[in-house]
Amino acid sequence: MEERILMGHGSGGLMMSRLIRDLIAPAFEMESLADAAVLEFSSSGKMVLTTDSYVISPLFFPGGDIGELAVCGTVNDLSMMGARPLFLTAGFILEEGLLLSDLRKIVFSMAETARRAGVRIVAGDTKVVERGKCDGLFINTAGVGVVPEDISMLPGNIRPGDRIIVSGPIGTHGIAVMAERNGLTFDPPILSDTAPLNGLVADMLDACSGIRVMRDPTRGGLVTTLKEIAGEARCRILLQEDAIPVLAGVRGACELLGLDHLYVANEGVLTAIVEKQGAEGLLEVMRKHPLARNAALIGEVGTEADGRVLLETDAGGTRLLELLVGEHLPRIC
Amino acid sequence: MEERILMGHGSGGLMMSRLIRDLIAPAFEMESLADAAVLEFSSSGKMVLTTDSYVISPLFFPGGDIGELAVCGTVNDLSMMGARPLFLTAGFILEEGLLLSDLRKIVFSMAETARRAGVRIVAGDTKVVERGKCDGLFINTAGVGVVPEDISMLPGNIRPGDRIIVSGPIGTHGIAVMAERNGLTFDPPILSDTAPLNGLVADMLDACSGIRVMRDPTRGGLVTTLKEIAGEARCRILLQEDAIPVLAGVRGACELLGLDHLYVANEGVLTAIVEKQGAEGLLEVMRKHPLARNAALIGEVGTEADGRVLLETDAGGTRLLELLVGEHLPRIC
Repeated sequence: MEERILMGHGSGGLMMSRLIRDLIAPAFEMESLADAAVLEFSSSGKMVLTTDSYVISPLFFPGGDIGELAVCGTVNDLSMMGARPLFLTAGFILEEGLLLSDLRKIVFSMAETARRAGVRIVAGDTKVVERGKCDGLFINTAGVGVVPEDISMLPGNIRPGDRIIVSGPIGTHGIAVMAERNGLTFDPPILSDTAPLNGLVADMLDACSGIRVMRDPTRGGLVTTLKEIAGEARCRILLQEDAIPVLAGVRGACELLGLDHLYVANEGVLTAIVEKQGAEGLLEVMRKHPLARNAALIGEVGTEADGRVLLETDAGGTRLLELLVGEHLPRIC
Repeated sequence: MEERILMGHGSGGLMMSRLIRDLIAPAFEMESLADAAVLEFSSSGKMVLTTDSYVISPLFFPGGDIGELAVCGTVNDLSMMGARPLFLTAGFILEEGLLLSDLRKIVFSMAETARRAGVRIVAGDTKVVERGKCDGLFINTAGVGVVPEDISMLPGNIRPGDRIIVSGPIGTHGIAVMAERNGLTFDPPILSDTAPLNGLVADMLDACSGIRVMRDPTRGGLVTTLKEIAGEARCRILLQEDAIPVLAGVRGACELLGLDHLYVANEGVLTAIVEKQGAEGLLEVMRKHPLARNAALIGEVGTEADGRVLLETDAGGTRLLELLVGEHLPRIC
């Protein structure tokens, strides 16, 4: 009989204390089992704080798992503010009956990803709910980072003529997860792009002072993210369809599944809006980083202050891109 | 037809953006809808970071709701480290079909509690899962506070002769929730003690330099918390049964439900281990605070270094108190 999570693992008593002492605290190299961590925080900069809950289904997918995702997603949210991610918290909600071996895999995956990203998981919490009251497990990570005083990522700084950049092919994460859910396999396989982007962002900020805004286009994909930026900045964004990188397999899978890759989630891709002069130099720097070898210039900011995002299509037409109203791909992160 | 949460509210698209723009951001007075908040953080002290997920059932109970609890619980975890709570994040996992009016009540309750505690909710996240994949809603809050350099709450500082204090009657939160679940009513009603303790803690730290450790005895109640402390400090804790404050109604309900109030959760009570000389003076200060009118001296630290917690009973005997092995009261926070 494989060991499973029981309600007692959430009781605050002996079973919970052992779960934390034997699995979670050693994996994250936590110094204490206290409810809160005391940390040194350098004052040379502003603090950035973020949170995300991860409810992806299934827990394991080609190229990643919910643990890797829960670290990368929050590291990336901090990175997009120009911040250096420092500390994460990890809150687990476990379903009674979850295989302990699955929890172990996920915790180790979080620890390994945190090491890769150079961040520390310093505080945690574990709750257990009855069978059927959650879906395996949910993870929340909150993150603290520090951003230098002279860096601010504000859509208000965007100007006509600024260039739009993406760091790599889009839609890969969403399609990898959908394929797993639908029992589809591809040759070559489509693996989630989940990755911590803080190293890439550090290189970009070193190389270019003209970065206006960075975002990681997760839920809702590239278009949703650019629509948000255009709306906040009251600017128009013009995209070139043929310039937007997408893997052939992802394009094919989108056709098969009736999805538009422009709206499919990414977890290891960023889009940046950059001053025109610095764009080419920045792309050269990005392409030297393993996570951005296929970084591309995909469009520019127009002169109209209307918050619209337009796509110049391969066929020579222009398509107005809107926010999705309802659900496209549920539980993709 | 009452409005309900739909899967589209978690899509990253228009429905989600409206939910955040119209409900969550205004309630929390958030300055931006970005994924992360940039904050001023004073460097005169160390940073304390904590996280907790709240999965209490039912969402509304006598004297409180999950929203109030989610703010108080995290404020209190910071306070117990001697920290001044500053910022919270709020991560929502919503079940498809949740009444929008219930979400609204809970969000307003969080906002009101944050105001009462003097903290700001600065970053949030919203996920939606299919009906039956969660239980109404779960909330995670992570918290950031600052603790002066000269304050450290370390069980290692505990010495024989130190006094054990509680700030008020124990077991009230757990019994209020259990009564609601079991359809029991009491006269007078038993209301949860949920409250932010940071004001009380500030008064205590001002008045007394001899506080070794503070904890809020939530899951597993007073005994679980004191057992943890005794284990970490390798000290013995001796409690006087007749000195431990408990409401008559809570005592009666515990007998009815077959529970031991020493193990029942609290959400607005703290226990402190204090240098002998300062204990009486500290109690006087505490009793002036509305949340600690019935603060009491309940025991002391013995000379044996064995990590045991012993109860001297009303009947004149001595009872060895252990950690609970399994589940006592599930989903109480």
